[in-house]
Amino acid sequence: MNIAIVGIGLIGGSIAIRLRETKTFDKIIGVDKNENNQKKALQLNLVDEVLPLDEAVQQAKVIVLCTPVDVIMKLAPTILDKIDDQVVIDMGSTKINILQKIADHPKRGRYVAAHPMAGTEYSGPEAAIPNLFKDKVMVYVEAFKSDEDAFDIADAITDQLEMKSVFMNAEEHDIHTAYVSHISHLTSFALALTVLEKEKSQGRIFELAGSGFESTVRLAKSSPDMWTPIFKQNRSNVLEVLEEHIKQLQKLHDKLQDEDYEGLHKLIKKSNKIKRIIK
Amino acid sequence: MNIAIVGIGLIGGSIAIRLRETKTFDKIIGVDKNENNQKKALQLNLVDEVLPLDEAVQQAKVIVLCTPVDVIMKLAPTILDKIDDQVVIDMGSTKINILQKIADHPKRGRYVAAHPMAGTEYSGPEAAIPNLFKDKVMVYVEAFKSDEDAFDIADAITDQLEMKSVFMNAEEHDIHTAYVSHISHLTSFALALTVLEKEKSQGRIFELAGSGFESTVRLAKSSPDMWTPIFKQNRSNVLEVLEEHIKQLQKLHDKLQDEDYEGLHKLIKKSNKIKRIIK
Repeated sequence: MNIAIVGIGLIGGSIAIRLRETKTFDKIIGVDKNENNQKKALQLNLVDEVLPLDEAVQQAKVIVLCTPVDVIMKLAPTILDKIDDQVVIDMGSTKINILQKIADHPKRGRYVAAHPMAGTEYSGPEAAIPNLFKDKVMVYVEAFKSDEDAFDIADAITDQLEMKSVFMNAEEHDIHTAYVSHISHLTSFALALTVLEKEKSQGRIFELAGSGFESTVRLAKSSPDMWTPIFKQNRSNVLEVLEEHIKQLQKLHDKLQDEDYEGLHKLIKKSNKIKRIIK
Repeated sequence: MNIAIVGIGLIGGSIAIRLRETKTFDKIIGVDKNENNQKKALQLNLVDEVLPLDEAVQQAKVIVLCTPVDVIMKLAPTILDKIDDQVVIDMGSTKINILQKIADHPKRGRYVAAHPMAGTEYSGPEAAIPNLFKDKVMVYVEAFKSDEDAFDIADAITDQLEMKSVFMNAEEHDIHTAYVSHISHLTSFALALTVLEKEKSQGRIFELAGSGFESTVRLAKSSPDMWTPIFKQNRSNVLEVLEEHIKQLQKLHDKLQDEDYEGLHKLIKKSNKIKRIIK
């Protein structure tokens, strides 16, 4: 049984590394429209061979889509057009639009929508690492619409990746990821822009940057090619969260401007409740 | 030679741990107005004994102030009133107001203003850890106003902590820390408030929280007792940065609202320049 991984970057490459270790598939086929990525994926020994999409779909039992979400949007229906009983799994960070696109497709049952809640701020084949997914959460979206055998194959891969699983509908998924993933990236991008702007007039500014700064700004190294489509596909949820976040920042701002230090202390103490969630 | 550490929390406790290892001082005296902290500091063996401030000042050659900055503001002039040739070092996160307070004090030369760019989101004596300061930056502020022998004693401690050092004036220090430390905390507090608010209506929201979320929100566990005074003492700089940060978030928001994805992509790409600064 062969697997084709479409988009051999951080996610696709890291899946390949793990499936090589577990020897689940006879052959791992890489598909990537970027020639540089193709070369690197072979050099790094992530995949056994690189093929054009159509040939890969013919040779593989399982096709995993790990491209940016706008590309998944385009590929999902065209790949379903081409398959027989193969299984197509997408690993995209947004779900509503993708699943609408294939909702009425006659092969909908062969499609499994999944989202591994794992990643780093790096991208491309050289960003692929072992154990990226270990002990993380795989979210299955509208799993009840997948054929049982198709789901079982996807879930076997989730097991190989040593992940826990969670089930959600598409609306739930997209709003939750807006809150616990997409907004974090936006705050990091904005923070980087704020500080880089200031650096122009205050050259030495980064001499004092410590681990707190690094922690809040590291996501600003994330790929614009990956993230612009995510914000586009999850636009209304992201706008909602972003507006709430700006409102919270404005509240902190106003307490400080009004010298209401008791009020500021209260807000900070309230935010401390996040301890309940993260160790 | 004895040292007195006033405020035995994350910073004071971690200094104590290191100075115990290096055996630089005959006795490490702890001072803390909080009885619980006093007990813990003894239990954890951070200090040799706990004394009231006045006795500690009498017995110690070096007095290190590690309390919240509003307390440093109050303590600095009163301790200078009491000393003979002892050295007083403050480890506060803001400098302009503190240094104004003692600018004309006859003992100004015995005072060394320092700021270790190191920390974690935890607080209290049990948050003290070995090697907190190793390879981090100690900022000396207005060091030229300290007597040479007083500065040398402070600098010997910086060496013991295995830190690099940087020199700045108070204005530079306060604006730089607003950009690379204080704002990071505000964005984390606001992010935590945003998500905790949403949790009320969407209970499962944190199931999907991954390492990106954790990284941007972890500073929201920081102590309000420590941070409210920092924002108060650095109010005008913090307001300036916060306003710029909200502007940058609003820019990202507007690009998304206007569906200007090319513009959004450009902003994200620009923010990627932070790679130059953090590995």
